[in-house]
Amino acid sequence: MMKSFIHVEPESHFSIQNLPYGVFRPVKGGKPRIGVAIGEYILDLSVIEGAGLLKVTGLIQDGIFAQPTLNAFMALGKDVWSKVRGRIQQLLSEEEATLRDHLALRDAAILKMSDVELLLPAQIGDYTDFYASKEHATNVGTMFRGKENALMSNWTHLPVGYHGRSSSVVISGTDIHRPKGQMKPKDADAPIFGPSKQLDIELEMGWFIGPGNEQGKPIAAAHAEEQIFGLVLVNDWSARDIQAWEYQPLGPFLSKSFATSISPWVVPLEALEPFRVDGPNQDPTPLPYLHKNKASTFDIHLEVHLKGKDMEQSQKIISTNFSYLYWSMAQQISHHTVAGCNLRPGDLLASGTISGSKKEERGCLLELTWRGSEPIKLTNGEQRVWLEDEDEITMTGWCQGDGYRVGFGELTGRILPVID
Amino acid sequence: MMKSFIHVEPESHFSIQNLPYGVFRPVKGGKPRIGVAIGEYILDLSVIEGAGLLKVTGLIQDGIFAQPTLNAFMALGKDVWSKVRGRIQQLLSEEEATLRDHLALRDAAILKMSDVELLLPAQIGDYTDFYASKEHATNVGTMFRGKENALMSNWTHLPVGYHGRSSSVVISGTDIHRPKGQMKPKDADAPIFGPSKQLDIELEMGWFIGPGNEQGKPIAAAHAEEQIFGLVLVNDWSARDIQAWEYQPLGPFLSKSFATSISPWVVPLEALEPFRVDGPNQDPTPLPYLHKNKASTFDIHLEVHLKGKDMEQSQKIISTNFSYLYWSMAQQISHHTVAGCNLRPGDLLASGTISGSKKEERGCLLELTWRGSEPIKLTNGEQRVWLEDEDEITMTGWCQGDGYRVGFGELTGRILPVID
Repeated sequence: MMKSFIHVEPESHFSIQNLPYGVFRPVKGGKPRIGVAIGEYILDLSVIEGAGLLKVTGLIQDGIFAQPTLNAFMALGKDVWSKVRGRIQQLLSEEEATLRDHLALRDAAILKMSDVELLLPAQIGDYTDFYASKEHATNVGTMFRGKENALMSNWTHLPVGYHGRSSSVVISGTDIHRPKGQMKPKDADAPIFGPSKQLDIELEMGWFIGPGNEQGKPIAAAHAEEQIFGLVLVNDWSARDIQAWEYQPLGPFLSKSFATSISPWVVPLEALEPFRVDGPNQDPTPLPYLHKNKASTFDIHLEVHLKGKDMEQSQKIISTNFSYLYWSMAQQISHHTVAGCNLRPGDLLASGTISGSKKEERGCLLELTWRGSEPIKLTNGEQRVWLEDEDEITMTGWCQGDGYRVGFGELTGRILPVID
Repeated sequence: MMKSFIHVEPESHFSIQNLPYGVFRPVKGGKPRIGVAIGEYILDLSVIEGAGLLKVTGLIQDGIFAQPTLNAFMALGKDVWSKVRGRIQQLLSEEEATLRDHLALRDAAILKMSDVELLLPAQIGDYTDFYASKEHATNVGTMFRGKENALMSNWTHLPVGYHGRSSSVVISGTDIHRPKGQMKPKDADAPIFGPSKQLDIELEMGWFIGPGNEQGKPIAAAHAEEQIFGLVLVNDWSARDIQAWEYQPLGPFLSKSFATSISPWVVPLEALEPFRVDGPNQDPTPLPYLHKNKASTFDIHLEVHLKGKDMEQSQKIISTNFSYLYWSMAQQISHHTVAGCNLRPGDLLASGTISGSKKEERGCLLELTWRGSEPIKLTNGEQRVWLEDEDEITMTGWCQGDGYRVGFGELTGRILPVID
């Protein structure tokens, strides 16, 4: 097993097998730039590139890692990503002396993670959210329309999705104020205005688009994975009471667009290859443009933890897996572009809530508490149906290798009271 | 009445009372830059600014009109916009010698419109589409759910809207390929895949956002108009067969995101002030955060013309008015931000289809042909229910002053056959 000269604990998410990309700014000052995570450290790629150590690829422009976003690198495509990744892995390996034995360069290029602030990894042109979990869509449908009409008739034929809001995508650690809005209580004659009382999370994963496509030229499913630069965790905060009143007939709007949180480290698709697995069987067989390759998903263990303001420790409330999703990432990309819509470098697509068949695998509070009828019991004796002020949510996820992990780190967000 | 030393026909849309902003590139070469339209000419603001003639405002940074988008200028806010506009109006007026008598500067700064290519006026971060016409929502609802259930219960309480796709917003003159997609014929057991057979237009207007707001800090309705930089015409191309199959429960997606066309000249809100009028009465009275000022809309005459490939001349098929919209722009902005969503300079909001109470005032083919049951008769003997290949659509609109017009020019788009 490949090892780095930088110490990495076996349970660290950031092994030399991972090397996720992120944008950071040293706490002591300096411009935003690009690095990779390794153990509890960050390798500053702007320094490594500046030292001439990434020239081997012959393909990247000068200063591409000194930029404040990954967009330009994302635009270069799979071959360049693979070469750069291979070179960084080589530079960090315990057998390679170039960086290991160059103490001045190590000093300049390797920072403690605790000494930096992590920023949004890309300028997100458009953000799209899907609804790709059959268990989630079935649960929600059952609650709102009954068991017989749980899944809409289109659901098994196409990956249902909608345009989200890119301006309000925020990085892990950003506090979220409870949103206000219109809602209509069950027995009221008219809507009321006030703070949302049904604030929820949605455990999702998102992926950043690479080169993208020209308007009018769809991406074939067989080539769609080439467009995936890497993956992050996504918390699609949702105000269920606002959503219920606003969503017909044009879909969710303000109930989602107040904030969407993402994790800072973008895990390259290549790092997930050892964990590739089959997704669920698809019946009926999708139309040809949605053709699914054999093993089209990845075994990524996912967890959500909640910590109320009076709790000493956070408590795990959800435990599920990315591979449960019915529609693959490639199918979602292919569908997104089939009518001609163009994707651009840095665009973010997300899966929708990831739920499994067991109760603890349900990816949002709406499902987990079955619309409030089965409150979550917390260790300190409290209960939760929806999020309360000061609740802190932490999402995490990783692939378990033999003696190492390829993980996504943490995605945290805390609910602050409504702003008056 | 103020006049310019540049000749402007009374029926020209680009009087000195208008002075809309656009981004252009000379056909003979050069970088994109910002200008205003005047008659059949463009005043190159990068040249005027470079000559030191816009310094009077004391507020704008150097080179702001040499940029390829209006975003930086949009971010400066209402007071700066007003000062700059006043100064340009002064420079173009027939009484002012500065530019009028400086032949070398006139030569450098004034271009024929036919000598330039017009580009997208802004980098659009997010694009939002509303559904603000009561006549349109009622017509569509009647066709799909019957007269008794035409309007959803939320419609009169909030401006229904959804997130659109910003990557596929294109400038007037861009040809649009007929989209392909999934659709489900009425009596079929399963969906099919193929070219859309129900391709439609939607006559809308859009407005660009100025400074915007911080996430979590809503824009009050009383201040929302200060956020409007200016207005454009919008054609929200729609594939009705794809839409009908995909839109539940998360709203329209691929049926709209293949292309949205906008007109190139952004008419400043200030230029519309003489045409301010009352909008429709709102019953029930909206919640306080949606408070409407007395005269909250503008008398803008709007038309749509269609030209089939075998027609010698285009034919007017729609004639309506912006002031028919039920929800005001200020209400739509206020609603958009009330839960905390942030708007950024250059974001585009659009009204949704603008329909009136008369048949010729219906703003899309779906309504105009009442879902195909009342085909449009064309002058060459053909009929239209939906758009055919090679059909060219031209939208236009203007405010009629006393001896002058404040207009939007033309928004054209032609349907090309599906790409194989």
